[in-house]
Amino acid sequence: MDYYEKALELHAQHKGKLEITSTVPLATRDDLSTAYTPGVAQPCKKIHQNPADAYTYTTKGNMVAVVTNGTAVLGLGNIGPAAALPVMEGKSILFKAFGGVNAFPICLDTTDPDEVIKAVKLIAPGFGGINLEDIASPDCFLIEEVLERELDIPVFHDDQHGTAIVVTAALINALKITGKTMPEIKVVLNGPGAAGTAIIKMLLAAGVKNIIACDEHGILHKNRGVGILHHKQMLCNITNQQGISGTLSNAVQGADVFIGVSVGGALTPAMAASMAPGAIVFAMANPVPEIDYTLAKQAGVRVMATGRSDMPNQVNNVLAFPGVFKGALSVRARDINSEMKIAAAHAIANTILPQELNEENIIPSAFNPQVAQNVAQAVAQAARDTGVAQA
Amino acid sequence: MDYYEKALELHAQHKGKLEITSTVPLATRDDLSTAYTPGVAQPCKKIHQNPADAYTYTTKGNMVAVVTNGTAVLGLGNIGPAAALPVMEGKSILFKAFGGVNAFPICLDTTDPDEVIKAVKLIAPGFGGINLEDIASPDCFLIEEVLERELDIPVFHDDQHGTAIVVTAALINALKITGKTMPEIKVVLNGPGAAGTAIIKMLLAAGVKNIIACDEHGILHKNRGVGILHHKQMLCNITNQQGISGTLSNAVQGADVFIGVSVGGALTPAMAASMAPGAIVFAMANPVPEIDYTLAKQAGVRVMATGRSDMPNQVNNVLAFPGVFKGALSVRARDINSEMKIAAAHAIANTILPQELNEENIIPSAFNPQVAQNVAQAVAQAARDTGVAQA
Repeated sequence: MDYYEKALELHAQHKGKLEITSTVPLATRDDLSTAYTPGVAQPCKKIHQNPADAYTYTTKGNMVAVVTNGTAVLGLGNIGPAAALPVMEGKSILFKAFGGVNAFPICLDTTDPDEVIKAVKLIAPGFGGINLEDIASPDCFLIEEVLERELDIPVFHDDQHGTAIVVTAALINALKITGKTMPEIKVVLNGPGAAGTAIIKMLLAAGVKNIIACDEHGILHKNRGVGILHHKQMLCNITNQQGISGTLSNAVQGADVFIGVSVGGALTPAMAASMAPGAIVFAMANPVPEIDYTLAKQAGVRVMATGRSDMPNQVNNVLAFPGVFKGALSVRARDINSEMKIAAAHAIANTILPQELNEENIIPSAFNPQVAQNVAQAVAQAARDTGVAQA
Repeated sequence: MDYYEKALELHAQHKGKLEITSTVPLATRDDLSTAYTPGVAQPCKKIHQNPADAYTYTTKGNMVAVVTNGTAVLGLGNIGPAAALPVMEGKSILFKAFGGVNAFPICLDTTDPDEVIKAVKLIAPGFGGINLEDIASPDCFLIEEVLERELDIPVFHDDQHGTAIVVTAALINALKITGKTMPEIKVVLNGPGAAGTAIIKMLLAAGVKNIIACDEHGILHKNRGVGILHHKQMLCNITNQQGISGTLSNAVQGADVFIGVSVGGALTPAMAASMAPGAIVFAMANPVPEIDYTLAKQAGVRVMATGRSDMPNQVNNVLAFPGVFKGALSVRARDINSEMKIAAAHAIANTILPQELNEENIIPSAFNPQVAQNVAQAVAQAARDTGVAQA
């Protein structure tokens, strides 16, 4: 039985994957009078007098909303909010299992970004953070930007930043193996959607100077015209400083790093062979990577990562989001800023000790409990260092 | 230490009263591939093809949103959504403890009823039912009416209907003791707010003919003018058929039943003494009832109930809402209609066996596990009988 059939069985058996449980006893009249009326009036009054007391007397400080409108769910596209619920429930329980963070799915019945923004602002009082999930590009950029500005709790679009953090972590370790540094490498990113755009921004913040972005029309450059809309205009300003044009095949010649968040098979073995010595390829299309693991290795690729759990070096967001929120919530961070994301990437990378590092082990296992712990500590410290910690 | 201090300690110790837990294992790669990607895509696809499959593959069918905007929290008034959170968390865990129903607090940052409606409609895909809570009158009436009409999941304002169901249950049993019937009694209701209005409607649906409503200006009647706004105009049309006027004191003379959802001390011993023989008094103001239990008994009241847990016959909503939602969700009811509410009242009343019934035992204990069970069965049956069951 494959995972699809097993998943149907599991989901039907449990009728969903999460439940709400009480942390306090409710067995006696005394319990009720303390957890509910009349006693409960007292924490209510305290919070009314001092809103920050919500972090003391309620779950707010350890509760994340996993918000979607179902417009870009996995590879399934716009399947709507109800059909997105199994993914959001899954995400919610991963938050708890890997980061000890409570998370609850909020599936919004709208494709209008303004309504998403409005809904999240309305429900915000009960949450300590907002994890945006599977919202289509380019709406996801606007939604995140406005919510970050207008809410006093952290907002994080995991499809963008979770992926970017893990890719950056993987690149940090891959460069240790190939002996190159961020400022000197040439990176080609194929598929500048939500994740690709965030990866580009984060690599620039991490010190990379030379990034070429490609989409289905080839290399992004200011004078290309076709398909240069929305965020791709912005990407033309921050990538491709030499203003080169051409195809993906042109772009990858002599490149040190290829990062694919695009479609299976996009990087041919010939393209891989044209890269610089010590090539690094992160082929994250799912379920079929941009290039097959074995073919990439045969073409001379030194370090290879994919999105698959059955191959070495899985780029898996679960390495990032539980620890990122755990850390941000622990210091009541207002934002999850660039410094915190970079700190998370280094924490993930450094979880692999120097003596353990090799081509097939640049990314730690999702099941290494040290990962979320290290990420949380690093994120909390970066929040304090950058003045966004409020506790 | 009193309940207020104990409550502060309990809430601070646990940092809130609920948590999100997983119902499925997440210990291995195989677990992740089944509960999350890639397997999770399959239940998503099923729901996309057939929206009703959300009831099979997600928690939707057993998940209630406990929605407030914090405008009428306990007796504290408009303290806002964050300060309302301890109450909503308490309500949520009572749903689980007493009815096995998952419930999650949604605290909305708005006092605009249209925004409450909008927000609830936006978040509805993830929930099997909506429990409105502590929303001020008269906005609560509009909000419930619109949501009931526009959503295909049940909507229930507990402050109204939960209270009305338990009061009706108590009256059913009290009348067994005093040997009177619904159609022949005269009922005076003091405090026609959200709960009072729902009680009036439900008692009329249960067969009572003669109800007089009083507010701080005295008896509600069509020609009174002062204070006859909003829902009180409607109440003038369905109560006080003889069109009498005067004070609460005038109203209660010769009345068989007094129902107080008003303020402590509103019913004086002299007023209670002026009621008909076999008088029934439900004095539900909290923490100080409309009349003291002992004084009422001395004034000749035959059956007395209050909202207090330290006196006999506590009118406690926890007797109703867990079973009502459990029953409605079990048959995927579109609505919680009048017949289902009446059925719930009879189920609560009948949980007390004839040989157990006496003046001090007209309402079952909140901790009797049979209550929610009986209520759920009766509500489910009524839903089927009235054609609102969808499964």
